[in-house]
Amino acid sequence: MRVLKLTIEYDGTDLVGWQRQPEGISIQGLLEDALAAFEGGPVMVHGAGRTDAGVHALAQIASVALSAGHDANAIQRGLNAVLPPSVRVVSVEDAPSGFHARFDATGKIYEYRVVNAPFVSPFLVRYAWHVPQRLDVDAMRIAAGALVGRHDFAAFQGAGSDVRDTVRTIESIEWRGDVGALGNAAPLTVTITADGFLRHMVRSIVGTLVEVGAGRWPPGEVAAILASRDRSRVGRTAPPQGLFLVRVRY
Amino acid sequence: MRVLKLTIEYDGTDLVGWQRQPEGISIQGLLEDALAAFEGGPVMVHGAGRTDAGVHALAQIASVALSAGHDANAIQRGLNAVLPPSVRVVSVEDAPSGFHARFDATGKIYEYRVVNAPFVSPFLVRYAWHVPQRLDVDAMRIAAGALVGRHDFAAFQGAGSDVRDTVRTIESIEWRGDVGALGNAAPLTVTITADGFLRHMVRSIVGTLVEVGAGRWPPGEVAAILASRDRSRVGRTAPPQGLFLVRVRY
Repeated sequence: MRVLKLTIEYDGTDLVGWQRQPEGISIQGLLEDALAAFEGGPVMVHGAGRTDAGVHALAQIASVALSAGHDANAIQRGLNAVLPPSVRVVSVEDAPSGFHARFDATGKIYEYRVVNAPFVSPFLVRYAWHVPQRLDVDAMRIAAGALVGRHDFAAFQGAGSDVRDTVRTIESIEWRGDVGALGNAAPLTVTITADGFLRHMVRSIVGTLVEVGAGRWPPGEVAAILASRDRSRVGRTAPPQGLFLVRVRY
Repeated sequence: MRVLKLTIEYDGTDLVGWQRQPEGISIQGLLEDALAAFEGGPVMVHGAGRTDAGVHALAQIASVALSAGHDANAIQRGLNAVLPPSVRVVSVEDAPSGFHARFDATGKIYEYRVVNAPFVSPFLVRYAWHVPQRLDVDAMRIAAGALVGRHDFAAFQGAGSDVRDTVRTIESIEWRGDVGALGNAAPLTVTITADGFLRHMVRSIVGTLVEVGAGRWPPGEVAAILASRDRSRVGRTAPPQGLFLVRVRY
């Protein structure tokens, strides 16, 4: 069977997330239903990152085995003709046989956006977390440093996950942007690069770093939480609309 | 009576436009209802630009006469607490008595965004017009030159307008951005600065220039349409979601 590699961009606001669910519209479900028309039968699409409801992607990667012989560009155009405007197929390529978007991924980059201002622009409200109290970005940078490297991130894993090996390597955590400006200020953006992520890991990290930035916890608390491997100690899970899957590495 | 000057940012996607309508949610209606709570009675809000349904604003200006003595910052916070997230009051200032947002305006800047690529990003679809056929931006620039200056823009006025004096002065029309790139390309943006605009004038100009860019009309056609003052000769009215009121000058 031929294997296709799809690059997909989506606004997750009105979607239930990557994975097909009993109710609601999922990216996986949309792609499988659209590809079934080319295949003339059911297909299974594997995504590199199983993003949650409300989470966005600039370049999610998916793989699918097909027997349909259509040209890759024709498949791209056909998919975009039937998918809703919130989901676009940026490219379709023939991949080496056996390619699997999730198992073959060697790393991912996520971004999370925080608007740190008294109010949030109507053009950012779907794409950022609004944190009105002024954040100390230097404190958040110091705290984030404790998370870089190879660690057991069990404390930062969301409830209900079935993953047993919770060791991951974070290559970098970079905060950029200004804070405290009024109005149309560019959001504060944190970019996290790792060899893999646990369920809710980015959002747990962001929620924890924001506790530090707001001055409720000292920066050193983050290292203590990491070492504890205790989920009950992390900050709130940051809301989904600030999160973007930016890149998948192979 | 005290007069306040409000600066307002809005995502017009789900709104019926600036002006209060029998049905649907308008920016004027939202502001009047919210300000009535401070005033303890009905108020009338005047907007500098009466933007249509689906049109956005980065800095619409409105004026309102109030007897309420609240601090301007308290009014701003109070308005943002009750307005939907699609409408934000960026600032509230006390203005000279007699200030009128519309009659005192001496000029405005509008921007219009066009995505000139095979498909449009989910993050731009609410904020741009998707024109898939490749546009010749140089031809559009040449054609736009004929519109700069003091002219009778009757041909570019939308149907149903009651304005008799259709002479306006366009100070500049600037196109910027790349075309034809795939995917996340920055949209083509045209910025038009004038002492005033007729109803649908920006959208008629953009629709006409896109006909030139697509090669259906020669650039010189635009000067002929302008001279004709004949509405039936302009291109289609570009859709509302690409239009932003950027600035009002006093």
